[in-house]
Amino acid sequence: MNTPNIQASPTSTDGQPTTAGMTIGSYLIHRLQEYGLRDMFGIPGDYILTFYGQVEDQSKINMVGCTREDCAGFAADAYARVKGLGAVCVTYCVGGLSLCNSIAGAYAEKSPVVVISGSPGMSERHNNPLLHHKVRDFRTQFEVFQKLCIAGTELNDPSTAFAEIDRVLEAITRFKRPGIIEFPRDMVNVVPRFTHTPAPPSSITSDPNSLSEALAEATRRISSAKKPVIIAGVEIHRFSLQDEVLKLAEGASIPFAATMLGKSVISEIHPLYVGLYEGAMGREEVTRFVEESDCVLLLGAFMTDINLGIYTANLDPSRCIDATSETLRISHHHYQNVLLGDFIRGLATSGLKAPKRTLPARPSSIDRPFAVSPNAPLRIERVMERLNLSLDENMAVVADVGDSLFAATELTIQKRTKFISPAYYTSMGFAIPASLGVQTADRNLRPVVIVGDGAFQMTGMELSTMVKRRYNPIILLMDNKGYGTERFLHEGEHAYNDIHPWAYHRLPEVLGGGTGYEVRTEGQFDAALTSALADLSGPSLIQIHLSADDASRPLRRLAEKLSQRV
Amino acid sequence: MNTPNIQASPTSTDGQPTTAGMTIGSYLIHRLQEYGLRDMFGIPGDYILTFYGQVEDQSKINMVGCTREDCAGFAADAYARVKGLGAVCVTYCVGGLSLCNSIAGAYAEKSPVVVISGSPGMSERHNNPLLHHKVRDFRTQFEVFQKLCIAGTELNDPSTAFAEIDRVLEAITRFKRPGIIEFPRDMVNVVPRFTHTPAPPSSITSDPNSLSEALAEATRRISSAKKPVIIAGVEIHRFSLQDEVLKLAEGASIPFAATMLGKSVISEIHPLYVGLYEGAMGREEVTRFVEESDCVLLLGAFMTDINLGIYTANLDPSRCIDATSETLRISHHHYQNVLLGDFIRGLATSGLKAPKRTLPARPSSIDRPFAVSPNAPLRIERVMERLNLSLDENMAVVADVGDSLFAATELTIQKRTKFISPAYYTSMGFAIPASLGVQTADRNLRPVVIVGDGAFQMTGMELSTMVKRRYNPIILLMDNKGYGTERFLHEGEHAYNDIHPWAYHRLPEVLGGGTGYEVRTEGQFDAALTSALADLSGPSLIQIHLSADDASRPLRRLAEKLSQRV
Repeated sequence: MNTPNIQASPTSTDGQPTTAGMTIGSYLIHRLQEYGLRDMFGIPGDYILTFYGQVEDQSKINMVGCTREDCAGFAADAYARVKGLGAVCVTYCVGGLSLCNSIAGAYAEKSPVVVISGSPGMSERHNNPLLHHKVRDFRTQFEVFQKLCIAGTELNDPSTAFAEIDRVLEAITRFKRPGIIEFPRDMVNVVPRFTHTPAPPSSITSDPNSLSEALAEATRRISSAKKPVIIAGVEIHRFSLQDEVLKLAEGASIPFAATMLGKSVISEIHPLYVGLYEGAMGREEVTRFVEESDCVLLLGAFMTDINLGIYTANLDPSRCIDATSETLRISHHHYQNVLLGDFIRGLATSGLKAPKRTLPARPSSIDRPFAVSPNAPLRIERVMERLNLSLDENMAVVADVGDSLFAATELTIQKRTKFISPAYYTSMGFAIPASLGVQTADRNLRPVVIVGDGAFQMTGMELSTMVKRRYNPIILLMDNKGYGTERFLHEGEHAYNDIHPWAYHRLPEVLGGGTGYEVRTEGQFDAALTSALADLSGPSLIQIHLSADDASRPLRRLAEKLSQRV
Repeated sequence: MNTPNIQASPTSTDGQPTTAGMTIGSYLIHRLQEYGLRDMFGIPGDYILTFYGQVEDQSKINMVGCTREDCAGFAADAYARVKGLGAVCVTYCVGGLSLCNSIAGAYAEKSPVVVISGSPGMSERHNNPLLHHKVRDFRTQFEVFQKLCIAGTELNDPSTAFAEIDRVLEAITRFKRPGIIEFPRDMVNVVPRFTHTPAPPSSITSDPNSLSEALAEATRRISSAKKPVIIAGVEIHRFSLQDEVLKLAEGASIPFAATMLGKSVISEIHPLYVGLYEGAMGREEVTRFVEESDCVLLLGAFMTDINLGIYTANLDPSRCIDATSETLRISHHHYQNVLLGDFIRGLATSGLKAPKRTLPARPSSIDRPFAVSPNAPLRIERVMERLNLSLDENMAVVADVGDSLFAATELTIQKRTKFISPAYYTSMGFAIPASLGVQTADRNLRPVVIVGDGAFQMTGMELSTMVKRRYNPIILLMDNKGYGTERFLHEGEHAYNDIHPWAYHRLPEVLGGGTGYEVRTEGQFDAALTSALADLSGPSLIQIHLSADDASRPLRRLAEKLSQRV
């Protein structure tokens, strides 16, 4: 193939970057690598094979083949959360349309993922033939993704292809939402006739008048408050504003909480950290501490139903300053065009100083020494208490939804962004493929996956890829033989909440790697976890038998509160 | 609950059907049962639980819980192909958007499936709160499905809900395409204030002038032809026109072929049946027989790339009469508004009589007695030859895509519609969940599933549901450790075509049911198949080790033809 090697940024004789002679495929690979992408997830298929070949021949990008496309999407999402950009590469329709749910989740939770999908060549489309994988017309897949993406392009015109690639990648990384690049297979090797200079990213700035007025009002409100508190949300991570928030909190001595979706956005062992604010699901001391505040500074937080403990939270908007990447609201009025980063930086440098306030006590149950009762049947909260003792800064907790998430909120995460969960979109089956993404992004980060049996049946076989690649996640499979959260929150016994039991711990025999454990008591779990922690050779899968009526503390608190409402 | 029992069609005092007192949910259940629906596939989730409860309490509809939504979609598609209507019932976005690929396949291949998705209650949506599972706005899921469905409705208005249900179900069953009913959870138990009488299905008739002119021209062409031939396509099945086509073929003594997607639309042991017409992939005698014809009567056939053997077919349009549910073309001109059924019936009663013509010999390789070479390494074509001996009319062959499909085209299917495969949309992973749909539709029909290892890794764990329900499919898992068709049709060795090997035959140990076999030789396969045929107690999974370079006869013929082109 005559395309240039694009490992290094190509330059012309005058030292300026040039795209002369580059194919459209090469340019896409080049730009992805400029954004720091080192890995992609996907499944090959005929409409994308030409591009697969280019990636294989011309780049060091590591193509991580998955068992199915939606798993590849979840993996790319988690990878993006760790690395700042993720990519998934699939064939037309049968591949792309299998990604809809994963990409919808990335949209909802602001994860910057680029979908690269092959499509029929432009020259094949004449007379509208019935090519395989086509649904309604050739644009069906693209039109679907327009509903699920912040930006998209079909690379059907060599004269605009390079600029289109720039535009889509910039939108994805600016807004932290997924985008799609649909690539007709006969365009991959096309060399446009002109050279292209990537436009510098357009810069968006705050309106100076709005910013200064908003800062003046906010500092006035915070200064006059006796009990200000910060609630840090997930956007602080997505927009890399952790240092700015810490500077504000530490400089002004303002305690901070986090939301469930933003859990671990800042280290949970920071002295100013008070805990997760999640309405009735949270610890009562934390809820009271936040709700007693006379000035709540919400920074980058989505006020979702889950984050608000199914609306059991009780924040008076007239005492809130609510800043996100999309809006800034103080009490009941709004400021337009104030960037979240500018606002936080402005507050951090305004010399604020909050009155000293006693923080709620650390949760005694989770941090106390763990005394194993060897023969006691295992309960969810005891699993978390034991696990919490062993978490260290080289591990990332990846929690699936339902009580896997609720229970895991009680864990103490020592380092930033070492807790990953789809806590808003709450798509079951996220965690196992997401842990593939996490360990691909950082080979030295060991995922600890907390996943229910229902979720595992959806995507758990992606474990295959981790066996193949000798990754070593520890999987805590919370097996209550059914859709436990539904059982717990909806009255009556319903057969549809019971699922077929699997001997999950025997999957390593099917997959030819990893180690399975089956535990029922505290002693068995303690031994299995100890063994798994010491075994770095491959995945460890601990099947934890739980009673169908067991539930974590947060879920029990929520159920109690909801029952009081009725 | 105060809703009426809708087992029997409700009637008012004057004996007319009445909907007085019926909830919207009850009416939907009532109409589905009127269409003959006895089973639904799905996964429960909070936004759809109210409707799940109604189905459980008020109907005998059997809710088949699946491991994941896309599997439920494939199962509903296959069920629809057998029964005439299928249904899948899921929660909002995380459920619905996981169905996109299955439903796209049903659209592409004309399978009448209704998607019933829960959604947030209308009363929850005020002030646009961030409810879990939401993507962009509350209509995102519906807008996506508008691209993939023939009709859809959001049941957000009691005054139109009943009529909307009628409209969507009628469109699905008329056009044989999927439709969506999105059901806000607070509307399920709403009783509209007025009674509703279902409008009789609007009838569409042929334009009499177009029909008579088309029939006159077609009969003239067929009468003057020396070698007329019929190619029967999948629409003959979808629109239940098999008897009409047989009447035409038998009455006029016109031999008939079938397309790959239409395989088994009429019994393959009928004396006038010549075989599958599929360009270079087909047997040369059949290809020649069809292409020598001076009048090819295409009935309900999609002329897709796969049906045409990746465009290696060679049909001269000026010798074709091409009638489908959407168009009627004779040579190079078109007739509008001629219904496929009217056209076929008109031809059948026009007294046509074709000259006698010798049919191609039956394929000797597939029908000859099978002599086992006990120690010979197994090859794909030998698997098919052995299987062909044991197929009977109580079995349905369900073929996945790639060489599972191509190889299976050589099987002789004795009864109508006992061959099911996504031969146009070609979505990998269809077959295992589809076999769940087939056996749910007809408990006495034993599925024989032909599936590759790559496809099995996508959806094969749906076997779990068949173990749970004590179904007894026979699964022939063609294990060549990779994406075999891609290997075969694309040059070079590529690591991305190799997949992680599983000990598939050990899955029964994980699933707690079924029997696994592992075979490498003809003798082992013969013994395993014999044992599986005799074992009706549960699924039999035969892992068939194949050489990576093995391929079926049709795939080899295709590869040879394509290589001549280059």
